[in-house]
Amino acid sequence: MTLPFFYEPDVAGVSSHFQLSEDTSKHCIQVLRMKAGSLIRLTNGKGYSYNARIVEEDRKKAVVLLESEIFVPQKQKKIAIGISLLKNTSRFEWFLEKATEIGISEIIPLLCERTEHTRFRADRMQHILVSAMLQSQQLWLPVLREPIAYKTALSRPDYQLKLLAHCEEDSKNNIGELPPFSDALIMIGPEGDFSPAEIQTALDLKFIPVTLGQTRLRTETAGMVAATLLINS
Amino acid sequence: MTLPFFYEPDVAGVSSHFQLSEDTSKHCIQVLRMKAGSLIRLTNGKGYSYNARIVEEDRKKAVVLLESEIFVPQKQKKIAIGISLLKNTSRFEWFLEKATEIGISEIIPLLCERTEHTRFRADRMQHILVSAMLQSQQLWLPVLREPIAYKTALSRPDYQLKLLAHCEEDSKNNIGELPPFSDALIMIGPEGDFSPAEIQTALDLKFIPVTLGQTRLRTETAGMVAATLLINS
Repeated sequence: MTLPFFYEPDVAGVSSHFQLSEDTSKHCIQVLRMKAGSLIRLTNGKGYSYNARIVEEDRKKAVVLLESEIFVPQKQKKIAIGISLLKNTSRFEWFLEKATEIGISEIIPLLCERTEHTRFRADRMQHILVSAMLQSQQLWLPVLREPIAYKTALSRPDYQLKLLAHCEEDSKNNIGELPPFSDALIMIGPEGDFSPAEIQTALDLKFIPVTLGQTRLRTETAGMVAATLLINS
Repeated sequence: MTLPFFYEPDVAGVSSHFQLSEDTSKHCIQVLRMKAGSLIRLTNGKGYSYNARIVEEDRKKAVVLLESEIFVPQKQKKIAIGISLLKNTSRFEWFLEKATEIGISEIIPLLCERTEHTRFRADRMQHILVSAMLQSQQLWLPVLREPIAYKTALSRPDYQLKLLAHCEEDSKNNIGELPPFSDALIMIGPEGDFSPAEIQTALDLKFIPVTLGQTRLRTETAGMVAATLLINS
């Protein structure tokens, strides 16, 4: 049976004591009614997992003993997705959940010419990522960036492979046929696609145009299809 | 500019007149306030698309002239997904939308040992498929079956390739490494996975176990990942 699994960004140090956050304390002691001696599992979202035994029952400041530690290195293949914010926030949040489940490493919300909605609740979005990481039993939390202008995102360094998914008819590459890579950034446009100028700017910066299949996809679907194809390529 | 696009399962016969359904009539005449002479686009969801000119404005029985016809053959690769119904209906409906956008051909809702929810509103589900087909500008509507018992679904004939996506540790194949195929059926289990007996039954029937990646996926995510990988394999 799997242990109750929680996110504690600062947890560290096997065989030492650790004070749980107020949220985790409340969930363990008040909601799950766990007693001293019960076991839970904690991750810092950076590859570490601890089996932790409750030693002090407290609804706000429960204390655990970190009994054992596991470290899982990050995936060989790091996928970053730059994706336009959406007018329909729930569709964007849905993308965050699915991209986390699939195991991408980084999400960069984009403000493009045709982006219709620029509101971004970082705390709420972060919470969705954490829930999806725990739900899918992963130990690495994707990095969620603050929204930035598309053209600023284009010039971010340190991606081995830079890809652009746009809808215009064009000679595009299949993701399955790309050269092997260890980390990639793919850009996904808003409803209504990138503007011709935005596409040209990316091509000038040596972004490779790729196709995500024969059908016209919504932005959040395109993001999820891109994540799936890149991680499994 | 793209024409307003509607689903009319019985539309046929270029250069003949056709009476729109009450829903489509209402949407054109009352909601969009279209007048005689305006152009719309219709599909029967079986590959045919018509440019149609309104000749009779009527809120319930508008009539159009089918001016031109296009036929697009069905995809080379037909993907059928058998997937467990979910307790959270909105997650299942979300899967229907995404699977349609991606372009799968058939969806078989499954009743498995661990399926927690068996309610199925065929009319509502069908409506979601139609909206997603129109949204993604496709001319083929996926076939949505009535829910059936998992073991009954296993014995359905006429799929060239039969695949099983389960979570147990096992020697599994990557979808990218499967032999070429023209049509495939893949089975996706409920939250909590297929039971060992259900898995064995499928293997006895020569279903090939496949992996959908290294992370543990929710049912609806697994269905979408499977659709994406199979269509693009």
